[in-house]
Amino acid sequence: MTTLMAIGGAINHQAPRILQEFVRRAGGAQARLLILPQASALEDTGSFYLNLFSDLGVDRPAAILACSGRMDVDQPANLEAVKQATGIFIAGGNQMRLTTLFGGTRLETELLATYRRGTVLAGTSAGAAVLSKVMLAFGRSGPTPRQSLAQFTAGFGLTDKLLFDQHFRQRDRLGRLIYAVAAHPGLLGVGIDENTAAILEDDRLISVLGTGAVTIVDGHEISATDAAEAADHAPIAVAGLKVHVLTEGCCYDILQRQAIIPKKLSLSD
Amino acid sequence: MTTLMAIGGAINHQAPRILQEFVRRAGGAQARLLILPQASALEDTGSFYLNLFSDLGVDRPAAILACSGRMDVDQPANLEAVKQATGIFIAGGNQMRLTTLFGGTRLETELLATYRRGTVLAGTSAGAAVLSKVMLAFGRSGPTPRQSLAQFTAGFGLTDKLLFDQHFRQRDRLGRLIYAVAAHPGLLGVGIDENTAAILEDDRLISVLGTGAVTIVDGHEISATDAAEAADHAPIAVAGLKVHVLTEGCCYDILQRQAIIPKKLSLSD
Repeated sequence: MTTLMAIGGAINHQAPRILQEFVRRAGGAQARLLILPQASALEDTGSFYLNLFSDLGVDRPAAILACSGRMDVDQPANLEAVKQATGIFIAGGNQMRLTTLFGGTRLETELLATYRRGTVLAGTSAGAAVLSKVMLAFGRSGPTPRQSLAQFTAGFGLTDKLLFDQHFRQRDRLGRLIYAVAAHPGLLGVGIDENTAAILEDDRLISVLGTGAVTIVDGHEISATDAAEAADHAPIAVAGLKVHVLTEGCCYDILQRQAIIPKKLSLSD
Repeated sequence: MTTLMAIGGAINHQAPRILQEFVRRAGGAQARLLILPQASALEDTGSFYLNLFSDLGVDRPAAILACSGRMDVDQPANLEAVKQATGIFIAGGNQMRLTTLFGGTRLETELLATYRRGTVLAGTSAGAAVLSKVMLAFGRSGPTPRQSLAQFTAGFGLTDKLLFDQHFRQRDRLGRLIYAVAAHPGLLGVGIDENTAAILEDDRLISVLGTGAVTIVDGHEISATDAAEAADHAPIAVAGLKVHVLTEGCCYDILQRQAIIPKKLSLSD
């Protein structure tokens, strides 16, 4: 089974249920964890997560991937660390630091291979954005979709069906996610609130864990849009967008395009 | 074998060697051609190419894919036309018209399937841009790579290794292609001049046909870039970019990352 955990940033470190779930899925006490802190500009990001994980009942300390420039990335110790990990955690910061550093390296290829073999891949904030093939690099806030509201580039490509956005409702990012989906309605937009995870199993089933929501923006029933014609920064029109707002316990089946809200949530009995 | 022909626009219709090569690869006189004119805002684009192809010795007239809105796309006759075609030609115009119309439809999925079964896929200008997974949607000109110089979205995804740009030297687009490659050095930038084709076989070998050049921008040896940090519209720094300028008869092997210039061109004997 493949498992991707896209986390919306601002994890509650006092009640780290999302990180506990990551550790559990990566093997619990037996987990071999690897931290990629390179999106962050702070020097202690790696050791910060190392300490957090050591409080979560992992027998062996997590490893921190060591590289600062592109020339360091593909050293054998790094490739081996990726191969050996049962859980890989990509910290937040700036997602373009991740793509400019790792893009096109053997290590990036190895990340994909180890994910396909079953290693749990988790990323928070920038670390979540980078997981998809078409990556939301940066952009502006607001509820209205506008031409060029966000900038895209290639991400790591662990999934090519989804596009992740993070800090989603905290930073009012619905407009840019709708813009992305209108430009190519085959992308499924996944907006993830802070301290919330969208957990993708087998590139098919998304489940939600955390205190916020995951907003699914599905463009498959868009009947018309003027996204091809709208001038720069002008609002764009979109008809037939389907949106699901999912909280903990809810699921979304990508193939069936169906959201599942469990009865205990949907009925007040 | 899979065959993708990405054409840089402004095909010389008086000496249509590129279109002849498309017809030849699609089966010659026996070819069943399908034209997708939807990127164009002109009403006669489909019939224009239909007439062009009828002068190139095809027994059966080409078909024109008929759909103007997303609700028309997946009608059975259209899906059948894609399945039956031995060569599909995507005309120029605005590539976002193609992604907003076809993105996420069954027809888009069928295009990929028929391509993988051996149907020749050709596109000119916007029709070339749309062929890749990460698509260059629009942008500005100039030789200097700058932050946000171009806008990207998802394309049809017939290849996920390459990123095509067109009208390449005529519209001075090196800057935006370098920007794209710097943002994720795993993308191979392919800039195609007017009346020139980059022919991709088996997602591996690129050959050049036409009166201009194909410029390959390879980021795999980038040692450093500040593309993650540069402010909006500021020039970005890139070290270690590899560039090949290839003319007719030259090839590029994507896996080996090697350009091959035949002896008759490289020696003046």
